[in-house]
Amino acid sequence: MCGMASPDLPLDPELARVLNYLRDGVPRTRAQLADLSGLARSTLSVRLDQLIAGGLVESAAGGVSSGGRPAGFLSFQPAAGILLAVDLGATHGIVALTDLAGTVLASEAAGLNIADGPKPNLDWALATAERLRLRVDRPVADIVGVGIGLPGPVEHSTGLPTNPPIMPGWDGFDVPAYIRTRYDLPVLVDNDVNLLALGEHATVWRAVDDLFFVKVATGIGAGIISGGQLQRGAQGAAGNLGHVRVPGSALSLARANADSDLEAIASGPGLARSLARPGRTPSSSRDVVDLARAGDVEAIESIRQAGRDIGAVLSTCVDLLNPSVIVIGGSLAQAGDVLLAGVREVVYRQSTPLATRHLTITESLAGETGGVIGAATMLIHHLLGPVTIP
Amino acid sequence: MCGMASPDLPLDPELARVLNYLRDGVPRTRAQLADLSGLARSTLSVRLDQLIAGGLVESAAGGVSSGGRPAGFLSFQPAAGILLAVDLGATHGIVALTDLAGTVLASEAAGLNIADGPKPNLDWALATAERLRLRVDRPVADIVGVGIGLPGPVEHSTGLPTNPPIMPGWDGFDVPAYIRTRYDLPVLVDNDVNLLALGEHATVWRAVDDLFFVKVATGIGAGIISGGQLQRGAQGAAGNLGHVRVPGSALSLARANADSDLEAIASGPGLARSLARPGRTPSSSRDVVDLARAGDVEAIESIRQAGRDIGAVLSTCVDLLNPSVIVIGGSLAQAGDVLLAGVREVVYRQSTPLATRHLTITESLAGETGGVIGAATMLIHHLLGPVTIP
Repeated sequence: MCGMASPDLPLDPELARVLNYLRDGVPRTRAQLADLSGLARSTLSVRLDQLIAGGLVESAAGGVSSGGRPAGFLSFQPAAGILLAVDLGATHGIVALTDLAGTVLASEAAGLNIADGPKPNLDWALATAERLRLRVDRPVADIVGVGIGLPGPVEHSTGLPTNPPIMPGWDGFDVPAYIRTRYDLPVLVDNDVNLLALGEHATVWRAVDDLFFVKVATGIGAGIISGGQLQRGAQGAAGNLGHVRVPGSALSLARANADSDLEAIASGPGLARSLARPGRTPSSSRDVVDLARAGDVEAIESIRQAGRDIGAVLSTCVDLLNPSVIVIGGSLAQAGDVLLAGVREVVYRQSTPLATRHLTITESLAGETGGVIGAATMLIHHLLGPVTIP
Repeated sequence: MCGMASPDLPLDPELARVLNYLRDGVPRTRAQLADLSGLARSTLSVRLDQLIAGGLVESAAGGVSSGGRPAGFLSFQPAAGILLAVDLGATHGIVALTDLAGTVLASEAAGLNIADGPKPNLDWALATAERLRLRVDRPVADIVGVGIGLPGPVEHSTGLPTNPPIMPGWDGFDVPAYIRTRYDLPVLVDNDVNLLALGEHATVWRAVDDLFFVKVATGIGAGIISGGQLQRGAQGAAGNLGHVRVPGSALSLARANADSDLEAIASGPGLARSLARPGRTPSSSRDVVDLARAGDVEAIESIRQAGRDIGAVLSTCVDLLNPSVIVIGGSLAQAGDVLLAGVREVVYRQSTPLATRHLTITESLAGETGGVIGAATMLIHHLLGPVTIP
């Protein structure tokens, strides 16, 4: 493994354009790359030399020399750099190191409290990253970028959390600057749900252009992939479903008052409040899921109704965006079919038939590392450019 | 003006890539185009010759010959072809001819009844197109594509209307095949609201990446531009707001019942029904707007309440998509500030502050030809490829 001497990252767009033709993992000859790109041989040669010097491209085994120029196959080297990917939730965090193809090399998860503020949580992430780096035995210089997910709105262009409701002390905190005191590298920050959507798309639904990811946990938010692109909106605030009003199914109307919003009635803490009684004080999604798994009928019905309330909002989202797939993730989704059944019941009844005819509503399959894989996917897109299928 | 001998349209992607560097209207030399594109001179030369042969590119005045090759400036020729653009609403249609930059050369509008079915309406559009062609004095062979907007869901990939609620006789009718019996050319069909969004974006909001267009007329629908791209969704059904449930503002809750949806309570016909009484039987958006303009207090308050109900749905859309601009168009929007005031009242109160801080809510400015300009924009994108800023 070699550190990146050159080229600098993010890649110059002209280098990215050449590398693009190798990122599907298929080795190709210079002649094939000239045909695919339409670039002049001389231009192509200069760019390939820069990519080879930086370790991103190598002559594959079996390459032979002909007239002083390599005649063999060239291939993309995902091991040329490693990425630090961090996914911080309200009560749980994961840190991973990945290669430049987004494959997880090592990861570690722990409980945390996001409300402790940025420094203790980011310090934990940095210390964990250092442990993982030693475990995979790579020099610090091999790390080429840092991607971080946070459980609240983030202005993606600056990496600053913006009025995050459950994150006291984080509003406007300069996360990239803090990370750069340790790693002087590109640092990208995004809402955790956006990263979950990217991770689910990268690992399970790569062929789908329109995917709608909903995280149901301490908060409720969506990550929207439309037309093949993650949609962040003008200020990076897209997907902010928590305070959306729930339109009137008979049941939710009866429960809703003028101030009730989706998060108040269907999040983990919202359900926990409604299930609390003397001697039983659930406080989190996990507590609610545990009650349901223990067979508590009231908890099971509450989760199903939360699914219906979420479904009432999602039926508007389906009419609006016509996704192919809705993926339900987050800790309350660990209740499995109960939550999904409520969502499906309302979405399939209420949305327009054209939009639901081929709609799949399913649970998250990317698993616990979906968020860090999403963070790596975001970084790779930034560092190496978008992949266009040759 | 010459007809297109070659190249064929839609342009080969390699030709589109060269033309892209001229579509901003700035003439450039071959040397500049080689620098911009990174293409080998020989490759570039072959492609430019094909574009010149097809009339899409010309040597600008003042170009001189040097060693048998033109040394002067090359420029894009939007007059090389003309586009037939048709925008059919429920009760009103516009037909236009445009050049390849989307500039309207001639247009004609008329009342129609979409419920008369596809043949009479499309025959009217074709006859009107022929009149316009004679007026601009161009041969039939100059027409290179046809774009059509319809007031209902359209499967964009096939051009077939799909269960359009207000269009009896249109469901599954093969619009492109019918048009091709007259013009054997690329025919693209889309929902009229998508085209209004494209037209508004092309004429007024070109620098904005996230625009949300709402048409309030006989139906209520949205055209969504997110991340700079029109979002059609998986089956082309995106933007279908008509049957979305209105979340509970106190007023709309009082009026809504289990079956009420946005279109039932806030469209032109919905308002007309609620305003009807013996001796006064408004039936359309125009009738309602006329009543309001005549100072009818009940009509004015109804339109304002329609704005609030639309705003209640839009506040979810704003939290979901975080657009920069919401544009309100359609015949009911001709009530002007009354409708907009209702929309603004609810959206600014109800959506999250981060999403409304820089949000503009405004009326459509593209005017009556917005839909046909949108149809031309869609066609140009298809025929000449997307424009990437050099």
